[in-house]
Amino acid sequence: MNHIKIVLQYDGSRYDGWQKQGNTGQTIQGKLEDVLEKLAGVPVEVRGAGRTDAGVHALGQTADFYIPDPISPPEVKSYLNRYLPEDIRILKAEQAGERFHSRLNAVSKTYRYVIETGEKKDVFQRKYVYGLGKRPDVEAMKQGASFLTGERDFKSFCANKKMKKSTVRTVYSIDIREEGSRIILTFRGNGFLYHMVRIMTGTLIEVGLGKRPPEDIKRILAAANREEAGFTAPAEGLFLVKVDY
Amino acid sequence: MNHIKIVLQYDGSRYDGWQKQGNTGQTIQGKLEDVLEKLAGVPVEVRGAGRTDAGVHALGQTADFYIPDPISPPEVKSYLNRYLPEDIRILKAEQAGERFHSRLNAVSKTYRYVIETGEKKDVFQRKYVYGLGKRPDVEAMKQGASFLTGERDFKSFCANKKMKKSTVRTVYSIDIREEGSRIILTFRGNGFLYHMVRIMTGTLIEVGLGKRPPEDIKRILAAANREEAGFTAPAEGLFLVKVDY
Repeated sequence: MNHIKIVLQYDGSRYDGWQKQGNTGQTIQGKLEDVLEKLAGVPVEVRGAGRTDAGVHALGQTADFYIPDPISPPEVKSYLNRYLPEDIRILKAEQAGERFHSRLNAVSKTYRYVIETGEKKDVFQRKYVYGLGKRPDVEAMKQGASFLTGERDFKSFCANKKMKKSTVRTVYSIDIREEGSRIILTFRGNGFLYHMVRIMTGTLIEVGLGKRPPEDIKRILAAANREEAGFTAPAEGLFLVKVDY
Repeated sequence: MNHIKIVLQYDGSRYDGWQKQGNTGQTIQGKLEDVLEKLAGVPVEVRGAGRTDAGVHALGQTADFYIPDPISPPEVKSYLNRYLPEDIRILKAEQAGERFHSRLNAVSKTYRYVIETGEKKDVFQRKYVYGLGKRPDVEAMKQGASFLTGERDFKSFCANKKMKKSTVRTVYSIDIREEGSRIILTFRGNGFLYHMVRIMTGTLIEVGLGKRPPEDIKRILAAANREEAGFTAPAEGLFLVKVDY
């Protein structure tokens, strides 16, 4: 068998997220496995680095799989690009090291969240930004974000209430910058809990709109209770930018 | 009455072009007039600078219209942005000079055509580029384009065979640049005939693919016959960038 690593981008708008859920719904993983099975003649199981939610996009998701020997990475790339729908595109396919595992070997992931503050979204970006329609105070958001970096228990920022495993993660950096009428948040961390980036973003938006002081973030973290944090920002503004190994 | 000038962007994908055609089809002009009639309480006729074809996009189309007095430009902008669909966005609304006419006063128009040469389009740009899937010779395209600038009879580049008015236009510049795997052509001229930018693009692509020598453009112009020019590049890659007055 040939062990192959791919890097791909996708428009998540019409998908129920990355992960296959039995035989229901349209998922990125499901689409990849369907096309790879046609290429390989046998079922292929695809492992992804990050399980993006329904509606979340990717600029550089990473995945790996095993496929019968004669099939080379360039063949995989061109076959997938030919038969996958136009909202999924393979950027790179290469030989993976024997022990490589997309999810377990990831050392950091970078996510981006895009907010439009103007009265209407750019028409060409309309599916890829969250239309807030107001201008939050970016300095307050930056101050709030400073309390979210480092190794912390992010239980308050986890949408999975039945989470039994550790909710401790390290957020290496949160960069917030303005680009015209848009605000772009970039999160880099060693891992993110279910909805964590979207809840952090929603909470920082509330800080920016003056609904909470920046210091409130400290109290939210300490409470270890999802109810204390802000709203979950919509999926459409979120991108998995890249996965580092 | 208040004379108002607007600058707008739109994703032309689901429209039958700018211009209203009786009561059939979805057009940008029709959408604007419908919403403006609701605001004004009386029918409003919108004049556009360029009649973009079905499927063609705009980054900076210009239009003007008369509306009853108490309605100000900021009100027009926010009302239109609120009630127009999400694929049409007003960037600017301002008082127009008394004699201003969007089409007749235009001194130049700029169009952009975007070609993807890679094996698959960027998923986030897929509705806004033409997927050629091959890499043409850009230097040959530039050489071919040099024969298209200046004041010339563009009859061979006009899709309207029954055109009775003059087919002489001045193309001020054609800029061709590579940006990663994309080729971007920018055309600036005092006016463009029906499908003219798309036929020039199609012909330059044929030059870039070695199907015609660059000098062939001279023969095509002299023939004054649409059959001599190349194919009409698809609408999806074309943008009306701006109109200068």
